[in-house]
Amino acid sequence: MSAWVLPDHTADVLPSGARLIEELRRDLLDTARSYGYELVMPPLFEHLESLLTGTGESLDLQTFKLVDQLSGRMMGLRADTTPQVARIDAHLLNRQGVTRLCYCGPVLHTLPAQPHASREPLQFGSEIFGHAGLEAELEVMSLALDSLRVAQVQSVGVDMADARIVRAMLANTPIASDRLAQLHAALAAKDSASLADIARPFPAAVRQGLLALVQLYGDGKVLFEAEKVLAPSALLTTALSDLKWLAAHLEGAPVTFDLADLRGYAYYTGPRFAVYAPGAPDALVRGGRYDEVGAVFGRNRPAVGFSLDVKALVDVAASRPLKAAVRAPWSEDRELRSAISTLRANGETVVCVLPGHESEVDEFQCDRALVNHGGRWMVQPI
Amino acid sequence: MSAWVLPDHTADVLPSGARLIEELRRDLLDTARSYGYELVMPPLFEHLESLLTGTGESLDLQTFKLVDQLSGRMMGLRADTTPQVARIDAHLLNRQGVTRLCYCGPVLHTLPAQPHASREPLQFGSEIFGHAGLEAELEVMSLALDSLRVAQVQSVGVDMADARIVRAMLANTPIASDRLAQLHAALAAKDSASLADIARPFPAAVRQGLLALVQLYGDGKVLFEAEKVLAPSALLTTALSDLKWLAAHLEGAPVTFDLADLRGYAYYTGPRFAVYAPGAPDALVRGGRYDEVGAVFGRNRPAVGFSLDVKALVDVAASRPLKAAVRAPWSEDRELRSAISTLRANGETVVCVLPGHESEVDEFQCDRALVNHGGRWMVQPI
Repeated sequence: MSAWVLPDHTADVLPSGARLIEELRRDLLDTARSYGYELVMPPLFEHLESLLTGTGESLDLQTFKLVDQLSGRMMGLRADTTPQVARIDAHLLNRQGVTRLCYCGPVLHTLPAQPHASREPLQFGSEIFGHAGLEAELEVMSLALDSLRVAQVQSVGVDMADARIVRAMLANTPIASDRLAQLHAALAAKDSASLADIARPFPAAVRQGLLALVQLYGDGKVLFEAEKVLAPSALLTTALSDLKWLAAHLEGAPVTFDLADLRGYAYYTGPRFAVYAPGAPDALVRGGRYDEVGAVFGRNRPAVGFSLDVKALVDVAASRPLKAAVRAPWSEDRELRSAISTLRANGETVVCVLPGHESEVDEFQCDRALVNHGGRWMVQPI
Repeated sequence: MSAWVLPDHTADVLPSGARLIEELRRDLLDTARSYGYELVMPPLFEHLESLLTGTGESLDLQTFKLVDQLSGRMMGLRADTTPQVARIDAHLLNRQGVTRLCYCGPVLHTLPAQPHASREPLQFGSEIFGHAGLEAELEVMSLALDSLRVAQVQSVGVDMADARIVRAMLANTPIASDRLAQLHAALAAKDSASLADIARPFPAAVRQGLLALVQLYGDGKVLFEAEKVLAPSALLTTALSDLKWLAAHLEGAPVTFDLADLRGYAYYTGPRFAVYAPGAPDALVRGGRYDEVGAVFGRNRPAVGFSLDVKALVDVAASRPLKAAVRAPWSEDRELRSAISTLRANGETVVCVLPGHESEVDEFQCDRALVNHGGRWMVQPI
């Protein structure tokens, strides 16, 4: 096999795409910063138990494992940055008040998360710790929408769910953890047949509730329908009323509901949301409340966050014009060198044509050239 | 062991450091762009033979190995980005003329490269392909110095060598590849005792030349001294005259020579350089000509480049002031929300104090607050 063939679901990002990703990355980090989210950079690899405790089996399967030559211990390459940021909040920063953190870096997956997904997403995300109220969800959702706005993604829609709904329905029904995982998968896939099969041993009310849940998607009427068809409980009432409050307060995108949606990370414990846009094969953004993740690091703080893949976002983001450059000849002339330095310091791209390459294709779309007029170097249009 | 203990030689980068790294990263990429270097993003993992063919044993030892679950083949996590960029030039872009590429991303090392080094450097680098003349070296070295200039690193010095000097000296002396590696290591460490031992079977002139080489460091006189004490050859003459030309043309930093310096990557084939600064335990930048790396990808193009670790650079870069932020209360008031959005869109950081957190420490150093005066929200100093 040729040496230049890459592994499946990986790719080189060439100049045209890399420029867009870099510009988008900056805009996303600047947007998070404008909300007061501080940047952190967790390492790409950690001991397995730090990366994976309390995060669920699917993240485990997505994680590449390595032996640390320094210690002989097992390490993992991060497949998701959120648990690392929870660790930083819980252990390293250890602040008492509200902490807002953001990040942008690669994550690696053993297997692609979707049929056409990269195994090396560039994950951008923002997390708020220390506030149990819905204002935290609202802020994070607004930031997620503003993040798509700077990318000029058109016609986005928010889809909401709540991890407490299924928890409320199963509160008095003992279920083995592998069965629960199958149940979640059947709900996520809206697979009524499997669901009926898994729920067969459950009490009739629970079984009927789970089958009804699969139909509970659509606009705000879904929440009222849920109150009617699902077995009432205090937890269900809280979950539905939280969803109503968030939908009423969120601005900037239409909100729909899909109460059976359990896709994405397994650590969510409260309201959860996904943002969709036309042309994107899957949700662009996933987020929600995950109050338990920090517990393994010694501090169980309220937490809400979201993440997105910048590489996937680029596919639906508006294209951006390439700034034209200045073409300059190569010479030892000090005046020329000084003119080039000044242009570069002022933010211009100046491409020097090295001796012998005068007739080559110009990759930077130069629209001006440095030309010598009577001993002075001047920029003139080409 | 506690879940929050990281593997040795890895670290979380907390907000104060992460902000500096991010700002520096942007300045470095913008500087490369101002020279006409186009950004590329190769994948973090590749098939082993793509990553490691022709790059030398030390890079092999530094590379984490993984099995690809999709193919069963061995993959490696990149420990150096330069060979990947040579692959992109040779195979993917396949341009006839001069191609300038840059990159900035993490590389991973099984073992730290230096006693205090991170195993996850953030590697920034620039490479120029397709020009065999010294103008390419000069441009890359100037860009390297400008990169340190935007980081405001003081008192940098350039140290030069040439991979052809040792090659010229050993041209007629057969030597096994493992012996050659030991010889390079002894030269790099200026270990005369080991060098004498390894060179014992060599002809007297070669042995004396190698031992003399270890003393050939210092200012420009070194090049004239080398002409006297080393066995003459066309290759040696070319190497020395190239070093003279580069030293005479490079502006912005004093140039010294260390003709035995063979540290860093093994793929260099011509002039090589390192940039040092006071306070940095090792060279901040290493670079040089490596005309052979693209050969394995089917195209042997002239190539010159350099790379540096942004995380190491931050330790000697000038600190940068944190921009002060605006503090805002939380409320459902539409006027307030609109005032906050406008400030954020104008580049300000606005931190909302969520209900119940009014007395908390302010991590963003807010110097202004949004305050309601007679129904209007206004920014006023705190």
